[in-house]
Amino acid sequence: MITGEMHHTFGVFFPLSFLFLVSPCSGGNILVYPVDGSHWINMKVLVEELHAKGHKMTVIRPSNSWYIKENSPLYTSITIKLEEDFKNVFDLYLEEQIRVQREGASLLSFFRLNNQFMTMFTQAHGFWCDVAKKVLEDKKLVKQLIDSKYDLVLTDPFTGSGVILAKYLNLPVVFNVRWITRGEGHFFMAPSPLSYIPVPGSGLTDKMDFIQRIKNMFFYSIIKFQEDKVLLIYDELCNKHIEGGCSIVSLLQQADIWLFRSDFVFDFPRPTMPNMVYIGGFQCKPAEPLPADLEKFVQSSGEHGVIIMSLGALVNGLPNDITDEIATVFSKMPQKVIWRHTGDRPSTLGNNTLIVDWMPQKDLLGHPQVKVFVAHGGTNGVQEAIYHGVPVLGIPLFFDQYDNLLRLQERGAGKIIQLADLNSHSFEKGLKDLLHDSSYRENIQRLSRLHKDKPISPMEDCIFWIEYVIRHKGARHLISEAYKMPWYSYHSLDVLLLLLAVLMVLLYSIYAVFRCLCCRRKRKTKPKQN
Amino acid sequence: MITGEMHHTFGVFFPLSFLFLVSPCSGGNILVYPVDGSHWINMKVLVEELHAKGHKMTVIRPSNSWYIKENSPLYTSITIKLEEDFKNVFDLYLEEQIRVQREGASLLSFFRLNNQFMTMFTQAHGFWCDVAKKVLEDKKLVKQLIDSKYDLVLTDPFTGSGVILAKYLNLPVVFNVRWITRGEGHFFMAPSPLSYIPVPGSGLTDKMDFIQRIKNMFFYSIIKFQEDKVLLIYDELCNKHIEGGCSIVSLLQQADIWLFRSDFVFDFPRPTMPNMVYIGGFQCKPAEPLPADLEKFVQSSGEHGVIIMSLGALVNGLPNDITDEIATVFSKMPQKVIWRHTGDRPSTLGNNTLIVDWMPQKDLLGHPQVKVFVAHGGTNGVQEAIYHGVPVLGIPLFFDQYDNLLRLQERGAGKIIQLADLNSHSFEKGLKDLLHDSSYRENIQRLSRLHKDKPISPMEDCIFWIEYVIRHKGARHLISEAYKMPWYSYHSLDVLLLLLAVLMVLLYSIYAVFRCLCCRRKRKTKPKQN
Repeated sequence: MITGEMHHTFGVFFPLSFLFLVSPCSGGNILVYPVDGSHWINMKVLVEELHAKGHKMTVIRPSNSWYIKENSPLYTSITIKLEEDFKNVFDLYLEEQIRVQREGASLLSFFRLNNQFMTMFTQAHGFWCDVAKKVLEDKKLVKQLIDSKYDLVLTDPFTGSGVILAKYLNLPVVFNVRWITRGEGHFFMAPSPLSYIPVPGSGLTDKMDFIQRIKNMFFYSIIKFQEDKVLLIYDELCNKHIEGGCSIVSLLQQADIWLFRSDFVFDFPRPTMPNMVYIGGFQCKPAEPLPADLEKFVQSSGEHGVIIMSLGALVNGLPNDITDEIATVFSKMPQKVIWRHTGDRPSTLGNNTLIVDWMPQKDLLGHPQVKVFVAHGGTNGVQEAIYHGVPVLGIPLFFDQYDNLLRLQERGAGKIIQLADLNSHSFEKGLKDLLHDSSYRENIQRLSRLHKDKPISPMEDCIFWIEYVIRHKGARHLISEAYKMPWYSYHSLDVLLLLLAVLMVLLYSIYAVFRCLCCRRKRKTKPKQN
Repeated sequence: MITGEMHHTFGVFFPLSFLFLVSPCSGGNILVYPVDGSHWINMKVLVEELHAKGHKMTVIRPSNSWYIKENSPLYTSITIKLEEDFKNVFDLYLEEQIRVQREGASLLSFFRLNNQFMTMFTQAHGFWCDVAKKVLEDKKLVKQLIDSKYDLVLTDPFTGSGVILAKYLNLPVVFNVRWITRGEGHFFMAPSPLSYIPVPGSGLTDKMDFIQRIKNMFFYSIIKFQEDKVLLIYDELCNKHIEGGCSIVSLLQQADIWLFRSDFVFDFPRPTMPNMVYIGGFQCKPAEPLPADLEKFVQSSGEHGVIIMSLGALVNGLPNDITDEIATVFSKMPQKVIWRHTGDRPSTLGNNTLIVDWMPQKDLLGHPQVKVFVAHGGTNGVQEAIYHGVPVLGIPLFFDQYDNLLRLQERGAGKIIQLADLNSHSFEKGLKDLLHDSSYRENIQRLSRLHKDKPISPMEDCIFWIEYVIRHKGARHLISEAYKMPWYSYHSLDVLLLLLAVLMVLLYSIYAVFRCLCCRRKRKTKPKQN
């Protein structure tokens, strides 16, 4: 029998070192084509690890990048000069999204939110295409890229630019991926039956009744339509710069390895492909000791423990009416509270609540005194909550955040409060549920055990497969033939149409023969009657 | 840059020990429900490894088993008394298959072969169902099985019996699988587009033109029809013994982990599922030194090297006319030959050819002097050829052998000679091609490097996932919702039908409104004209 102790021994990833005692692979030359914003945060984690393993990297960045620094000890950068600034558009979008959501959920607000999203989104892709165009049209830069003899392109296919450049340079491709333009990566790669695979944004799970499956189909149609529109600008780029032309979708499907920022402890199980590697939680690390003053504050919470709250780096702050309600609830709790908050100081703040600009989130989540994590549901935060086993009270703001939190809620490891429903009553109830119903903690700790019980850690998987592509100059043998086919051949519609035609001809022939026989009989019998 | 030396360093699996330094998981209590014959050969490899890791096993076997011994230091056995003997039927089937194939390929011979197969096959499943019935109807034995509190059932779902027993005992299930009744395992589990996934027995690859895709659809229909017929007897068993009844297919789809005896170095890439673990080549081990006399014989081959030939354990021997032709060709070659052959001694045997009853196949394949492997294409042999990087001249006899060899041939790592085309001329040409065209050796050595370049070895994967299921009492979170749905819901046909109906009503309404309007107009205009 397996003892509890053994469980525990296993519930920790193997040390990163073991793999590379056997595989001292170093010195790869990698061209990194990232996406800015929160996408860069996780790409940077990978860049850091690759750098530590001795790989050389060149990062392509726009001159007005938000987060991607020009000078870094981790990489050499290639800066593409751009005039437009996208940050204002984005900030305005975020504010608008919060405002519309506060007005309550309705079909009208759904279309308004969707419309805002598509406007911002189309601008973003236009901006990313501009970067790619400037790279591809700069003959000197292109020559420099060719001469650099990179081993592979590491890119986030949320923009299609990286994969187009890779094709142009004839280099293998590794994706650090979860989203592709408008959709979720799997929908481009693996068959995805809509009967049990919820479309992002639909608010559905993998258990759907008939009405929900109709809703899912409806969401899929909208997303597919919008996606196809966005992909057009990348198709143009392909047709202009890739010899013989091609579609961006076929380029995406040809990538050698997909490092997928998810796993099936977090996400619902669904079909996958041989070159998809699940690296969900690759950014998570064990907690380190807190700074002395924070540790003192945390310890002062005694038996009640600590609640921590953070709504991520993107949003500057919730409207004051909301933060005041939240602060009131916090002030009534026996717990201590650490709240990462950058807006106005709430007027109702209690003595038990510490407001901070920044907090060591992973170290707090890994602290045994921390009981609940109030979060917006960004992938990083949710993965860290799973890793450290802390239940989440989720306040989703935009993008995939509701869907991320829904996955926790479905497994009884968290609760969601929508912005429209957020008030002191719902917030207090949510907090108390999570604090007093032990099942939430038990469930997320079970997820944590499952997440950590892997033959090798997600980060080791990343490094292994990137070095694999370097060693074998790609991973063509893992790529299916699907990308070479038009959609009607892929779905065997041409074959079925032919078989249907043959069947029709056959049936018609039988009918014709019978009719002919009947006619003759009639003709034969008629004279007798007359 | 990665050096050749590093390649080499990596091209060896990590030592089996590393995993279990961290995971000293032992003492699982496993109920093994195997399939006899060649299926037991690879199940036994797994049983040996599990035994070495300290797991306790109980094996269910029929009293007249061919290979599964009653007394073994590896396991306790439960013997089910059976009268019928299936061995004679099987041997007769093999002889008949060889005879019909020698007559040449035609549509008639295809149907004759298929008919022979289905007759033998239906009998086999009837036999396996008898075993399951006897277990389930023996109240004393069932109580003993319940009292034993097994952690899981390890079974080969080539027969559906193991999974039915597991459901009855309410135990998690791990499969050691490639074939399920009539079909390949993937077709039961993962979406399998027929546009690029060849149906076993079709002789097709993943690159198909229009006509080949029609052929593939045709083969799929035949196999599906025959499969459904075979599955009926298991459905009966389910409905009789499982509370509330269920279909055997849904039981198969609910298995916790599928240890799949293939990988995508060997097989064509295709959609897969989160609980499918690819263990192709798990039975392969590095070569050990040959016995002194054999080593002396091998060394005596000098620069020309050695050819080895074996057509597996199932077949007693090819017809004498064939073996004579083969022996003639061998006698003319400058190489030495080691031939595992149990039939009559060929009259034309040369001095360079050593006939043996048994040979240390893996140790020979791993010997640098061995240049070509003449084989029937059984999974074990093909996987060993890939592991050791020796090109294969294949003479497929039955079952999956042609398909296995086709995968090597497609990658330029082997050649196939069909029984109908086998004569001294074709055999000599085949041998010489493989010996003198270095691309065959280069290609299979590339496959060997790819096969060995994995984060952990296939056998470690087996042990990891079996112990994972023990630790977590199953792996429910990796099983998709698909198995709960009727086929029309799974394919969203009900949703599409509704949408079609709505569309029709809508179109008809528009038509009706227009007709109404037109009528009015007519009525209005008519009087004026008149």
